[in-house]
Amino acid sequence: MAVCEILSVGTEILLGDILDTNSRFLSRKLAEMGISVLHRAAVGDNHERLAEAVSTALDRSDIVIATGGLGPTPDDITAEVCCRVFGFSLEENKEVADKIRGYFSRRGIEMPLNNLKQALVPAGGTVFENRNGTAPGMGMKKDGKCLILMPGPPFEMQPMFEESVVPFIEEYRSCTIVSHEVRTMGIGESAMAEICSDLLESANPTVAPYCKPGEALLRVTAKAETAEKADELCAPVIEEIRSRLGNVVYGVDVSCIEEAAVALLKEKNLTVATAESCTGGYVAKRITDIPGASSVFKHGVITYANEVKEKVLGVKHSTLEKFGAVSEETALEMAAGIRRISGADIGISVTGFAGPDSDEEGKAPGLIYIALDAEGVRLAEKTETGRNDREYNRYVSASRALNLIRKYTEGGGRP
Amino acid sequence: MAVCEILSVGTEILLGDILDTNSRFLSRKLAEMGISVLHRAAVGDNHERLAEAVSTALDRSDIVIATGGLGPTPDDITAEVCCRVFGFSLEENKEVADKIRGYFSRRGIEMPLNNLKQALVPAGGTVFENRNGTAPGMGMKKDGKCLILMPGPPFEMQPMFEESVVPFIEEYRSCTIVSHEVRTMGIGESAMAEICSDLLESANPTVAPYCKPGEALLRVTAKAETAEKADELCAPVIEEIRSRLGNVVYGVDVSCIEEAAVALLKEKNLTVATAESCTGGYVAKRITDIPGASSVFKHGVITYANEVKEKVLGVKHSTLEKFGAVSEETALEMAAGIRRISGADIGISVTGFAGPDSDEEGKAPGLIYIALDAEGVRLAEKTETGRNDREYNRYVSASRALNLIRKYTEGGGRP
Repeated sequence: MAVCEILSVGTEILLGDILDTNSRFLSRKLAEMGISVLHRAAVGDNHERLAEAVSTALDRSDIVIATGGLGPTPDDITAEVCCRVFGFSLEENKEVADKIRGYFSRRGIEMPLNNLKQALVPAGGTVFENRNGTAPGMGMKKDGKCLILMPGPPFEMQPMFEESVVPFIEEYRSCTIVSHEVRTMGIGESAMAEICSDLLESANPTVAPYCKPGEALLRVTAKAETAEKADELCAPVIEEIRSRLGNVVYGVDVSCIEEAAVALLKEKNLTVATAESCTGGYVAKRITDIPGASSVFKHGVITYANEVKEKVLGVKHSTLEKFGAVSEETALEMAAGIRRISGADIGISVTGFAGPDSDEEGKAPGLIYIALDAEGVRLAEKTETGRNDREYNRYVSASRALNLIRKYTEGGGRP
Repeated sequence: MAVCEILSVGTEILLGDILDTNSRFLSRKLAEMGISVLHRAAVGDNHERLAEAVSTALDRSDIVIATGGLGPTPDDITAEVCCRVFGFSLEENKEVADKIRGYFSRRGIEMPLNNLKQALVPAGGTVFENRNGTAPGMGMKKDGKCLILMPGPPFEMQPMFEESVVPFIEEYRSCTIVSHEVRTMGIGESAMAEICSDLLESANPTVAPYCKPGEALLRVTAKAETAEKADELCAPVIEEIRSRLGNVVYGVDVSCIEEAAVALLKEKNLTVATAESCTGGYVAKRITDIPGASSVFKHGVITYANEVKEKVLGVKHSTLEKFGAVSEETALEMAAGIRRISGADIGISVTGFAGPDSDEEGKAPGLIYIALDAEGVRLAEKTETGRNDREYNRYVSASRALNLIRKYTEGGGRP
């Protein structure tokens, strides 16, 4: 198996001014190609230390990928230092130089001369086009080793990697690794893992549990010669997981519960309206994050104050007095109220204490009620997160509300 | 100046399964102490490679900080390997062992025996308490060198660093670096930098421009013996920036525009109500992100469909017909409508095309109108982001709405 080392170059990384997300992106992509990453390093824009880092990396790895430090300023030294260490000289590339000149002339700006530095590429190397910036990438091969240089900004580096670097290092690929995610809500990570414990032992595909705020997922990962063969290995395992876990599974390879909920509403041609207290618009915001949500969502209200719950949603004064704003009864009346005033098929509501700290009623932060109202259906769910964390409580209660919409809609208009 | 090297330990990092945010956190904190980070490395849970990485790091640095790999499972080898390389033996710490036993017995779970591995700490070293987990941190000093081991989860590592590690490495501190951020909205990064161009040349404090989606900021950073002295260096520069930039500055060291807006509303004892179309609840969500928002925010509506704008907010049918839903006129009627039905001091509205792709009216994504209605005041602002990016357009239009609230409120109820 080929070994790759990733170098992140830039003093701004070592100062913590920017978060290095490139290394993670590259690690994932290389793992999918069956290329091992055994070392990653970050080093500043310093001749001596960069030369040492590249030299060490080339000694112990087949492929070295460095990102960052390809800009036009004097502290951008990655190309110069790395090419020298690997024994390549730099020469001006006419095509790149013309592109850089064009970039400035189109903007009517005079080009600072040092910008042409970005047109210097290794003689005998390969130039990778940068569709989103002026600095090209570079690839060099010698004595079975391979050195890749790419610009630091992720929106320049990522498409360059996919389009140019993957084909350039294809000969090092040992396999194709494909992952699928089975996403669940309403079951804990350990309970989920328990039900699938025998599957977690399997070798190809592997099955691994992960947790995210308010949800748990199983990642099914197969290794094969081609992506199609890897998918064939995954498919029966995903089916088995689905059948064991039942309706806590909200989707496979969907990115979030709102995506699943909106897709189902569209499919069943149903509309939803929201009435939110503690989430303050978060449920509606997440529904409308999804492009095309307007066909299933027309109307929402945020009734943060009790008097607004009464006036706008028709929650009974006696209900608020007797049970409090954070109660199953209030949640149910809120859901019924928003369905009535909106004319939507489904009314969904959330009321709770997000925290921090407890409220005048003395109930603990993280106590949340959600309710759903539809033709002939009234559902309520209580959640106690046990956390005094406003962002967590708001996020998780919005997720549960979206999941209640999903469960009801999936059941063909039944919970 | 003392030199520190940061090691991130864990195969899951090299596979790209998790993003390494610890290195950035530590880089920043060490920079603030005047400790240089010249190298960062990531290495898997592998005896030989970890030993080599620690040994190299100890050779070239005064302080080595390793995070990750302190768990109870057999692949957690950081303590064993690092202590061996640095010449410390491990012994069971009774206090830590009791804490781990207590953790399991309180939960009524039988403790797997390998969990006691986490009670093994270096003889002659210092144990750092872990308030949020079972694995303690460890510090060792020998021959002028210092080795620190901390658990990988950020919510365990970060408080441990602040509470225990900072005092442990105090002797290596060369200075204190303090930064303040002057945050602006309504001016581009380059225009902002132009106005302050002479300040960007200064040495102590330094002034550097940054941009974030929809806003620009200047970071003022001073270096001194103490935090108080560094603050004294920053203060006049921050005042100068404020006076040059005027009311595009929405705050200094505030974390976001919603924090600034809610604080001002509280201070002036004003309430706001929201009427949102394309942002779909994002403005209300961001207002209610701030703890205690309930004193300034009671009521919001999301009127995603035109008929809801008419029915709920009283937007005139003729306005929608003549100018369209995305227009200054509709925005103004939405803001007036929500103020009327809510009784709030300020009504704020957003209507626009978030994208992707253009709508039936043929207007481009990123065209957004926001409006504010208050006693004797009607304001509208038009924005064209020029981007076909739903998340960006929604975020930026919500930010502009919050900024309009801020500007109006700051002016004592005047724009």
